[in-house]
Amino acid sequence: LRQIRIGVGPVAVFGASNFPLAFSVAGGDTASAFAAGCPVVVKAHPAHPGTSELVGRAIQSAVKKCGLPEGTFSLVGGPDYALGAELVKHPAIMAVGYTGSRAGGLALSQIAAARPVPVPVYAEMSSINPVYLLPEALKNSAESLGTAFIASLTMGAGQFCTNPGLILALSGPDLERFCQSAQETLKTAPAPTMLTQSIHASYDAGVEKLAGRRGVSLLGRGPKGDASSCQAAVFTTDAASFMQDPIMQHEIFGSCSLIVACPDLDTLLALTRSLEGQLTGTLHLEDGDIAVAQKLMPVLERKVGRILANAWPTGVEVCAAMVHGGPFPATTDPRSTSVGTAAIERFLRPVCYQDLPDALLPAGLRSTNPLGLPRQTDK
Amino acid sequence: LRQIRIGVGPVAVFGASNFPLAFSVAGGDTASAFAAGCPVVVKAHPAHPGTSELVGRAIQSAVKKCGLPEGTFSLVGGPDYALGAELVKHPAIMAVGYTGSRAGGLALSQIAAARPVPVPVYAEMSSINPVYLLPEALKNSAESLGTAFIASLTMGAGQFCTNPGLILALSGPDLERFCQSAQETLKTAPAPTMLTQSIHASYDAGVEKLAGRRGVSLLGRGPKGDASSCQAAVFTTDAASFMQDPIMQHEIFGSCSLIVACPDLDTLLALTRSLEGQLTGTLHLEDGDIAVAQKLMPVLERKVGRILANAWPTGVEVCAAMVHGGPFPATTDPRSTSVGTAAIERFLRPVCYQDLPDALLPAGLRSTNPLGLPRQTDK
Repeated sequence: LRQIRIGVGPVAVFGASNFPLAFSVAGGDTASAFAAGCPVVVKAHPAHPGTSELVGRAIQSAVKKCGLPEGTFSLVGGPDYALGAELVKHPAIMAVGYTGSRAGGLALSQIAAARPVPVPVYAEMSSINPVYLLPEALKNSAESLGTAFIASLTMGAGQFCTNPGLILALSGPDLERFCQSAQETLKTAPAPTMLTQSIHASYDAGVEKLAGRRGVSLLGRGPKGDASSCQAAVFTTDAASFMQDPIMQHEIFGSCSLIVACPDLDTLLALTRSLEGQLTGTLHLEDGDIAVAQKLMPVLERKVGRILANAWPTGVEVCAAMVHGGPFPATTDPRSTSVGTAAIERFLRPVCYQDLPDALLPAGLRSTNPLGLPRQTDK
Repeated sequence: LRQIRIGVGPVAVFGASNFPLAFSVAGGDTASAFAAGCPVVVKAHPAHPGTSELVGRAIQSAVKKCGLPEGTFSLVGGPDYALGAELVKHPAIMAVGYTGSRAGGLALSQIAAARPVPVPVYAEMSSINPVYLLPEALKNSAESLGTAFIASLTMGAGQFCTNPGLILALSGPDLERFCQSAQETLKTAPAPTMLTQSIHASYDAGVEKLAGRRGVSLLGRGPKGDASSCQAAVFTTDAASFMQDPIMQHEIFGSCSLIVACPDLDTLLALTRSLEGQLTGTLHLEDGDIAVAQKLMPVLERKVGRILANAWPTGVEVCAAMVHGGPFPATTDPRSTSVGTAAIERFLRPVCYQDLPDALLPAGLRSTNPLGLPRQTDK
């Protein structure tokens, strides 16, 4: 018996609005589908049709130059949701990669599950990326953490899946110092132009909605900028209010964050248990925080795809160990990652060969191992 | 950055009716969920409640002996479909393993997909396991292939997921010799008692339905036996009739098979393209058949989970290379296998740790590698 994993078949890719290069036409989903040996059909994102077409033509010319079959890559475009639905329904499509809103990801998942032959949808949807300020770290670095928080929050107008949308800490004077520092830094924070008018409108609506929730207070807002700028917004609330109101867990795509003050560690743990699935969870900690962190880890591991220490979650590295994924609703499929080499596995399935002559085996499985691949074999 | 895969959480297992030991309470699904570190809740199969309880109690005593938490294993029972549905709906359940009918597997999949937090269902549902008799092999061994076919078909009253329910060959005198041999062997074939009255009733109904399809002729039936025996049934048809009638692809659980005569190789290939997803595909071939088989392989690889040469598909080995799975509707998830060590992967998801101190890492990821695990590391 020999096993190899082969490509699942043609993959439909829906690129993200916020990464016209890294997560769009020639982005991670497309690269990993190609690496798995699957043809790709990209639905161009309406936010950057020109870039999409330029990149699409570059891929097509590469396909030609490499002597690959013409159908290896296709690009379809248009602002029409119906087009995306038809693509996912098409019987030739065997898997879907998507980065975008929760509503969009769920809609595509439902379409894919209702097909005569259901297919997997790998949708990266939304996350508020909890950041924990543990007591020792908060005591020793409240001011610098406050400054670093606003820098991370306002980078790229906060248009990152991994934006720090939720700050968690024990209430007290150290948290107040953190808040003061954040408030001060916020006054001179950048107010960059947002990617599209619709993202901007959703951001403003999200901020307004959060401001109106019971128990939520405004800590401060950044500079207003012009009509398409992202005006940063930071709110505070208490743990009890947060746990009673699921709306506070909704992602607001842009530079908006909510600081939640917890009365004690048990409440912090209970709050963590009440969180939806997230892409990341971050611990700011010092040696004296290890015991607290050890209580938090088993809870956090069930909630997130990546756990960071003393960093901010916005940086994502493309490597073997990366997980850019996490429990629902961060993604539709916590068994996968959309960044890093493990992303290739999303588009593979195993085939087993029993007693076949070498002439009928894929080269990678032949007794002579002509490709010289590392292989797992029985002794 | 370090990555490890952890258990997804509690797994619900629905055992198969046909394997009270190998695929039931302490069967492959339960073993692989345990190996992934997941607690298991088994819904006992109503066909063997006594065996289920005995085995369940043995597992519970093993859990106690090993000092594992009490919730590591639970068994729930009863003939009620509603019980299974409630189990799959329960928010604590994070994945489902199932072996059984297509209707049952699809129902559980739909329930799991409609949950507030959808979870994967690994359902092994139905397969007719096409067996190809390639020209040279058929010419040289028509008679012995006919005998071996009936032996495989009637083993265990044909109550195997991998039963050879479809025989494909080019029409002509060699296929006629095969059919004569099968017909002759059928006369003295065994007629074992079937597992349950409902399986027996479904089998009889399936045979009757297939007998009535346009273009289908009865080749022969086995001995009748008593009221609960499986009376083997072999039918023949032509490729055109088969391709026009999707009903002929429905699995009939028991010793029933359909021989399809194809006028030429192109038709055989077209018929293979028209097949639904299957657990297995088998080639009976000799050296002179390699060229034909090379044309068939790329088509077959898209349709099945395991490809065999010069064997019968009923034997399934538990090893690293095994794939007991395949494209829909053989299973709900062709990326997985329910037999072999790779079955463990169904119940794992990756978690990534960035810059965490050793004290907060799982033992398997610590810099000191205290468990001495083989690990992939950067140079």
